[in-house]
Amino acid sequence: MTTASDTPALNIALLGGGTVGSQVARILTENADALTQRIGTRLNLTKILVRNPQATRDYELPTEYYTDDVDEVFEGADIVVELMGGIDPARELVLRAINQGASVVTGNKALLATHGNELYEAAAEAGVQLSFEASVGGAIPILRPLRDSLSGDKITRIMGIVNGTTNYILDEMDSTGASFNDALAEAQRLGYAEADPTADVGGADAAAKAAILAHLAFHSPFTLDQVYTEGIAEISDLDHKAAADAGYVIKLLAIVEELDDPAGVVLRVHPTLLPREHPLAAVRGAYNAVFVEAENAGELMFYGPGAGGAATASAVMGDVTSIAKRKLRGGPGRTHTARRELECLDIGEATTRYMVVVRAADASGVLAKVAGTFAEHNVSIKSMNQTPDQDSNDERQTALLAFVTHRAKEAQLAKTLEATKQLDVVDEVLSVMRVEGK
Amino acid sequence: MTTASDTPALNIALLGGGTVGSQVARILTENADALTQRIGTRLNLTKILVRNPQATRDYELPTEYYTDDVDEVFEGADIVVELMGGIDPARELVLRAINQGASVVTGNKALLATHGNELYEAAAEAGVQLSFEASVGGAIPILRPLRDSLSGDKITRIMGIVNGTTNYILDEMDSTGASFNDALAEAQRLGYAEADPTADVGGADAAAKAAILAHLAFHSPFTLDQVYTEGIAEISDLDHKAAADAGYVIKLLAIVEELDDPAGVVLRVHPTLLPREHPLAAVRGAYNAVFVEAENAGELMFYGPGAGGAATASAVMGDVTSIAKRKLRGGPGRTHTARRELECLDIGEATTRYMVVVRAADASGVLAKVAGTFAEHNVSIKSMNQTPDQDSNDERQTALLAFVTHRAKEAQLAKTLEATKQLDVVDEVLSVMRVEGK
Repeated sequence: MTTASDTPALNIALLGGGTVGSQVARILTENADALTQRIGTRLNLTKILVRNPQATRDYELPTEYYTDDVDEVFEGADIVVELMGGIDPARELVLRAINQGASVVTGNKALLATHGNELYEAAAEAGVQLSFEASVGGAIPILRPLRDSLSGDKITRIMGIVNGTTNYILDEMDSTGASFNDALAEAQRLGYAEADPTADVGGADAAAKAAILAHLAFHSPFTLDQVYTEGIAEISDLDHKAAADAGYVIKLLAIVEELDDPAGVVLRVHPTLLPREHPLAAVRGAYNAVFVEAENAGELMFYGPGAGGAATASAVMGDVTSIAKRKLRGGPGRTHTARRELECLDIGEATTRYMVVVRAADASGVLAKVAGTFAEHNVSIKSMNQTPDQDSNDERQTALLAFVTHRAKEAQLAKTLEATKQLDVVDEVLSVMRVEGK
Repeated sequence: MTTASDTPALNIALLGGGTVGSQVARILTENADALTQRIGTRLNLTKILVRNPQATRDYELPTEYYTDDVDEVFEGADIVVELMGGIDPARELVLRAINQGASVVTGNKALLATHGNELYEAAAEAGVQLSFEASVGGAIPILRPLRDSLSGDKITRIMGIVNGTTNYILDEMDSTGASFNDALAEAQRLGYAEADPTADVGGADAAAKAAILAHLAFHSPFTLDQVYTEGIAEISDLDHKAAADAGYVIKLLAIVEELDDPAGVVLRVHPTLLPREHPLAAVRGAYNAVFVEAENAGELMFYGPGAGGAATASAVMGDVTSIAKRKLRGGPGRTHTARRELECLDIGEATTRYMVVVRAADASGVLAKVAGTFAEHNVSIKSMNQTPDQDSNDERQTALLAFVTHRAKEAQLAKTLEATKQLDVVDEVLSVMRVEGK
């Protein structure tokens, strides 16, 4: 029988010594014996590429591990773990690793969502593996189940809470009634939000993850710029109140789905109302969860911490050990090259439900007029709730009408809203939000 | 480039044509083209072994597919899918498939929980794959994430709602106030419970899944008979009321955990109180969910339909396509042979929290006496709630005292209860339930 001591160790080079990189270094060194036993060979952390080898870090290894010399890091590396983030120089370094015959593990969603196809193809050509479980949902095993466990099924739709910062902020606003600015400040104080929260709050981070999820679910190449993106900064107090009154919570969801007519996929990130009893509605604080609908499996959900050094490092280490085990067994690795060429459709083709709140004259016949406009554009109304308007005055008595529609195309809704605004009984469309879940 | 038409088809033989088998046959035939495109070769369903080839089925293939001739079914099979259930002749047929060099996919939890090690070792020796995602949690991808995604982490504990029948019954009792018998009858009417519900209600089904989960989480061989098992038939109305009053729901959980002192694992299935805000508490109806605690990843949850023909077939097909893809790539398959030899500890070593309800004299000093007995045996009390006793009478005024403890060993609690019963102020210990979650 072959034992671990007979087998040459595998050299692991780490690019980046930040929050996640430090934790990967910790696990590789502290758990070395358990990993050797589990894998059948030793994982040998060789060097860590950092900008400043002298800086202090969360988890400190002896100084000889740290270097800013790229050649030194790549020397003899069997697996390169890229955790530096950003596009440059990450892209160039990942390509260099692939071309030298090393397998790559990365958690870099921005890189994958912009240059993923170039990297997948380079890896397939070089016969090395490129794994990136940590790029979506932190510690949550989601990419491997999508690729492997559901490979005999047809995924129709994925809805994910894939950004912990915005989920924390929305949860705070929902549960404590905090304003957006107060909730953001609290998230920053707790380290859930960065000093510049634009990428999280504006939805770009979730959009990158949507592109990666769509790639794995639909086996086609997608990029960040194909994702329709709305962030959470524009959500008003009225939006929150209307949602809560109707029994919904607001979540920032990344939604990717395959449509039949016209054929293609829609990729979108936007604030979404979910019924309180939906499994995603119960995802609190900075947690992440990915809800998957498949033709045969039905509804699945994967839940866990979406960020954090140790949690994300767990996903990285899962990829590293899987690659190591495959290297030991021999045989070629898996590839991620696209096998289909699905079209990415305009947001106008997306079908969803909507909540629309309008300020209208408080008079008889108003509901009939508004409902008539919806009907004209084939947007069917599921429910309506009228509440007094606090801005109503003697001059003009007004009320707030909150409509929830059945499913309709975005393009149809846009026309409906246009026509509704023209009605003389309607003062203003105050809120338009998308609604998902049953 | 190699195309699907260049590659010889893989022959799939199906053992069993029941609820799940029918759906696997449907997917293999209806989705043949999509599967071919995804895998790179054709999956060719050859024969289906059934007891009665003339019987009518959920999904009907032309009669030439069905046979009761074992030799005919095994002829030329590359992958054998065993969905007949039970030990005999499933065990013998799986071994025959392995020995003929076919890979095997099975959803047979009873077989794996009793003869798993024999089968894993036979598969490793023959160099074939044995996959069994469908054996735990139906459609939920849980075994692959445990084995692969978390392979660089250390799993410390798994708590699973892995039996849909009992979850449906408990959820009905909790949400509608139905009695156990009424909820069971409703479950039977809806097809969630079998005419003889013993294996579900008594916990044996969940126990088999606990043994399989423990095998994958702790890399050691475990069998069904090592799982401490209590079912749900003994849960009383008083248990339900006490749980609800204290903000808990009752779930039948399969819990497997690794302990340090003494070193080993405890495997247990029993009704468990969970705080209503725990992610597992929100798992309704016949759904399943597996909650995983790992050293670095933290808390993860995998949720989905735990049964049903199409859903379970999705998991089977995930295994089939993964094996097919690996066969095409070449290289040896993965093995499931145990790599550690962890001891299975007695339930007395398990550490959990408890809710204990006693009927005691409604007099001063009673709480002090009962609390003193707990303290003597090192069981620390977290909270106590006293309610009037409806059976109290003039002769002897009594009250119900509901204690929730901090974590303590089962053995300590047993001694505490023994001593509590001896107290002259205590009439009766009415309810003892285990409590998990924060």
